[in-house]
Amino acid sequence: MASIFSGRVESLRALMRENGWDIVILTGSDPHGSEFPAARWKQVEWLSGFTGEAGDIVVTHEHAGLWTDTRYFIQAVRQLEGSGIELHKMRVPEQVPIPEWIASLGLDEPVIAVDGLCQSVEAVDTLQEAVPSARIIPVPDILSPLWTDRPAIPVSPVITLGEDLVGESREARLGRLRKWLVLEGADAILVTALDEIAWLLNVRGEDIEYTPVVISYLLVTLDDVFWYVRKDVFQDPDSETAASFEELEADGVTIKDYDDVNFDLATLRLDGVDRICLDPAQVNYALRDAVEDGDLLPEVREVTSPIALWKAVKNPVEVEGMREAHLEDGLVMEQFLYWVSRHIGSVNEWEAALELGRLRSEVPGYREDSFETISAYGPSAALPHYITPHTGSALLEPHGLYLVDSGGQYLFGTTDITRTVPLGPCTPLEREDYTLVLKGHIGLAMALFPRGTAGCQIDALAREPLWRAKRNFGHGTGHGVGFFLTVHEGPEDVRQNFNPQPLEPGMIVSDEPGLYREGMHGVRHENLVMVRPVGDNEFGSFLGFETLTLCHFDTSCLEVSLLSPDERAWLNAYNAHVCEVLSPRLPAPVAAWLFAQTRPV
Amino acid sequence: MASIFSGRVESLRALMRENGWDIVILTGSDPHGSEFPAARWKQVEWLSGFTGEAGDIVVTHEHAGLWTDTRYFIQAVRQLEGSGIELHKMRVPEQVPIPEWIASLGLDEPVIAVDGLCQSVEAVDTLQEAVPSARIIPVPDILSPLWTDRPAIPVSPVITLGEDLVGESREARLGRLRKWLVLEGADAILVTALDEIAWLLNVRGEDIEYTPVVISYLLVTLDDVFWYVRKDVFQDPDSETAASFEELEADGVTIKDYDDVNFDLATLRLDGVDRICLDPAQVNYALRDAVEDGDLLPEVREVTSPIALWKAVKNPVEVEGMREAHLEDGLVMEQFLYWVSRHIGSVNEWEAALELGRLRSEVPGYREDSFETISAYGPSAALPHYITPHTGSALLEPHGLYLVDSGGQYLFGTTDITRTVPLGPCTPLEREDYTLVLKGHIGLAMALFPRGTAGCQIDALAREPLWRAKRNFGHGTGHGVGFFLTVHEGPEDVRQNFNPQPLEPGMIVSDEPGLYREGMHGVRHENLVMVRPVGDNEFGSFLGFETLTLCHFDTSCLEVSLLSPDERAWLNAYNAHVCEVLSPRLPAPVAAWLFAQTRPV
Repeated sequence: MASIFSGRVESLRALMRENGWDIVILTGSDPHGSEFPAARWKQVEWLSGFTGEAGDIVVTHEHAGLWTDTRYFIQAVRQLEGSGIELHKMRVPEQVPIPEWIASLGLDEPVIAVDGLCQSVEAVDTLQEAVPSARIIPVPDILSPLWTDRPAIPVSPVITLGEDLVGESREARLGRLRKWLVLEGADAILVTALDEIAWLLNVRGEDIEYTPVVISYLLVTLDDVFWYVRKDVFQDPDSETAASFEELEADGVTIKDYDDVNFDLATLRLDGVDRICLDPAQVNYALRDAVEDGDLLPEVREVTSPIALWKAVKNPVEVEGMREAHLEDGLVMEQFLYWVSRHIGSVNEWEAALELGRLRSEVPGYREDSFETISAYGPSAALPHYITPHTGSALLEPHGLYLVDSGGQYLFGTTDITRTVPLGPCTPLEREDYTLVLKGHIGLAMALFPRGTAGCQIDALAREPLWRAKRNFGHGTGHGVGFFLTVHEGPEDVRQNFNPQPLEPGMIVSDEPGLYREGMHGVRHENLVMVRPVGDNEFGSFLGFETLTLCHFDTSCLEVSLLSPDERAWLNAYNAHVCEVLSPRLPAPVAAWLFAQTRPV
Repeated sequence: MASIFSGRVESLRALMRENGWDIVILTGSDPHGSEFPAARWKQVEWLSGFTGEAGDIVVTHEHAGLWTDTRYFIQAVRQLEGSGIELHKMRVPEQVPIPEWIASLGLDEPVIAVDGLCQSVEAVDTLQEAVPSARIIPVPDILSPLWTDRPAIPVSPVITLGEDLVGESREARLGRLRKWLVLEGADAILVTALDEIAWLLNVRGEDIEYTPVVISYLLVTLDDVFWYVRKDVFQDPDSETAASFEELEADGVTIKDYDDVNFDLATLRLDGVDRICLDPAQVNYALRDAVEDGDLLPEVREVTSPIALWKAVKNPVEVEGMREAHLEDGLVMEQFLYWVSRHIGSVNEWEAALELGRLRSEVPGYREDSFETISAYGPSAALPHYITPHTGSALLEPHGLYLVDSGGQYLFGTTDITRTVPLGPCTPLEREDYTLVLKGHIGLAMALFPRGTAGCQIDALAREPLWRAKRNFGHGTGHGVGFFLTVHEGPEDVRQNFNPQPLEPGMIVSDEPGLYREGMHGVRHENLVMVRPVGDNEFGSFLGFETLTLCHFDTSCLEVSLLSPDERAWLNAYNAHVCEVLSPRLPAPVAAWLFAQTRPV
């Protein structure tokens, strides 16, 4: 049965015939490589109906395919039904990435249209390498002629954060970048990743859901800073935004219109720029074109942006903010879990998510959630990225496991926490899975490791208890977390890849092993942990983790016999600490409940 | 105080002036990239006196430096004394590899002479990339004019191994390679790694100590096999070698002279070869030059040799051979350890090594040791690569730890084992280190992991017990082991790198964590383990290890309280298994002693 999406694919093919394109590639990202793009750039969703966070589409005259990873296979199959678009699986051993797939078509000099704004330099270069004979045409906003009600670029208020909140002035941050430019022998850098711009300028916005960034570009030279932002719409001189812009201009930041970036890049040499750095994994293809199509060519140096690493290592003020965010978030979570325990059998997943959102929104400094809350009971939780439906979601019944994964954006930090809680009697398999995942969580939380160790080298510590029981989970164990910024950030992570980035003191990552049984249940235990030094000796400099998240782990469905003495001691100490810190700040009935919940096992 | 080596460096500088070379680079390898080269190619040792297995030398008119890794720092400092050659440390965070170091000199168009025979294509390409302006001149046998008594290329008898020993005919192995060539769209491959040639042709030699290979090159086309070997010296038609050559020729292998390879490579097109594959990490620079300097140029395709992976995955016959080798080797080891226990206080490290060699040499099918035995008592063992001196080695005293790391080359397999044994009372630190290293060993031995997992992703399982105590060791946890071939082989390993090669069923690796305290003691526990499938389910296909090595772990200095119940169960089961299998085959007093030694803890 054909859907509206098969019609959209056909109209795209008509456009392709008109223009002589053999292939069109669309990505699920935006001109800034954002993980969660604004509505305007949900091109993949518009064309295919697929709503997953990661997905690219290739359309030829004979085939239409969606490339996405393990997290979204079940969802993709359901959402693509009737669209005529086929699923291509990524992050599986037999994966065929888009460039190799196109190469395998064996076309002679194919004409490939890409959305130059939403494809990174690296992606286009990789494609060209895989299909050397291809003529790749960057077409901005390919879908706009078909997508008549396409949303505009969003505009929202801009705020600045003071040194009291972020611990480092924008002057100091820009100074670090300029020092780096001098060492690189370059005199300019183009920054396009929105969280890097927000970090450098100490600004935040609300342009993108869950991510407090401002849609903009940034050009930093040794003398100037140009911030390309949608300023045209800020007419009110009394607005927060106007005040922010004034503050920035006083600090030497020239505010220009978002679209001026193309012209400015084309005339760089006029401004005395001889060598400009850009990160090909971040900068979109259209912008590099703008630099290279200019009258006077500066040398383009492809670099790995240094900003991601600086941003990942939190300074003491940011760490204090993150601790405070986790204290507030812990109070929210305990009140929520108490509320759940009192509403078993009477509320559904969606109502629970609403209650959690309500509680978080009452925290002073709360801005928004850091991602869409996953509120999943029973079999729902077997989907690691379950989307709780607004209507008809499952009732929380008095047995089995309820999983809630959520987080907040506060002015002073970002949180991300998952708890899996028994709502009544659990099956032996639920108890075992619950316990083995907790063993994995504790294994990573307790780990010590020498400085220089990368996340991929210790990921196994969180998996080993599951592996020993021949179980496993298909997502990473941990991702970096920003300071009142993106809830997923690099360059570090803890997963089964070969990312060589060492874990450095001050980095904050999640520790979130899980286990998922289709049609039965899902378990995930997630805290945020911060890397910290634990001592130097003749064998090296050792690091460990400090757990930031403050929310007890339920012990009622634990198979205590499966825990080692070390693991039991860790769990009891953690729960006691949570109770001690949170109880005095909780309403009496919640505190009493928490005290009972955290009795040692 | 100047040594003879400083004189040699000076005479090399005179040669450099004569030829107009600014820089000379010498490697510790041979034209085949061997880990243990024959005496002819110990150029680094001749020039510097350094005898470590890994070391490269760079000489300029102002500086002479040796680049080597953590294993050899102490040794290098001692051996370089008086040579004027400075140590450059590798495998440390601040390492500056040779290409970067030369680039940092900032020379304009430097003339760099390299021994084209002993530098891989990859190494020279990397150098050229780092120093684009350099003129790199490949000079074969650079040192020969100075090294007047330089040894000749060794020649030793060649034997063939039948399918009963190796489980696969040379026809079948060459067939696999040709099938691969067809898939690659190529019609020839140049193989220069000696163990790959030995594996493909089912031949073995004695040209290199510890490594049963034949110094040779191999050119395989779709129709022909050319084996370039030092055949000129085999005049005796009754010799083992002559019979082997006859057998090979009957199988379609054309035997040619070692030096003919250059001419043949230069005339490849005459033989109808259009596209030849070579592995730039293995093939030496002079040979690629020979191909590219020929009259008629075939296309050179740089590939990763597929042979290493085929060779690493042992077939059932090879596995049976390896099991037998470990049974024989276990009997040797237990007799040796019994002998040691009876000679404490009366023999030294060297005498113990001799006794172990003698016991091994009595095994039918024994050919040689698989590497130089490390026999190290007390502080000697703190050097992971201690070389036991022939005279003046330490007496085995009735206290503390004795470490012995050794292995054998048998016609039916290769072994590599380390035991650390208490010779009497041990200090609390010795006991703790002994136990923590054993926990690491057991952690890896017991590990299960999903198919697709690489060694670097589980290396932490062997280190975690040490890391938790803020201790660590500076070498890899495990290396691949050949079947009656090199004791160190790839492509897999278990170490703190980012080698993506998954562990596959049939691969054999060492499990050898350690701990070293300078001036005090060293501990290492090493078994060889084989990867094997342990079961498939909804979560994937799981693998684990089967321990091949059969030799008990001494429990007398164990801190049993530090072992988990799982670890204790593993240790008791392993020791009981060793006793059960070996006792019936051991002399009665040794069997009785072993029975007592393997009582459960």
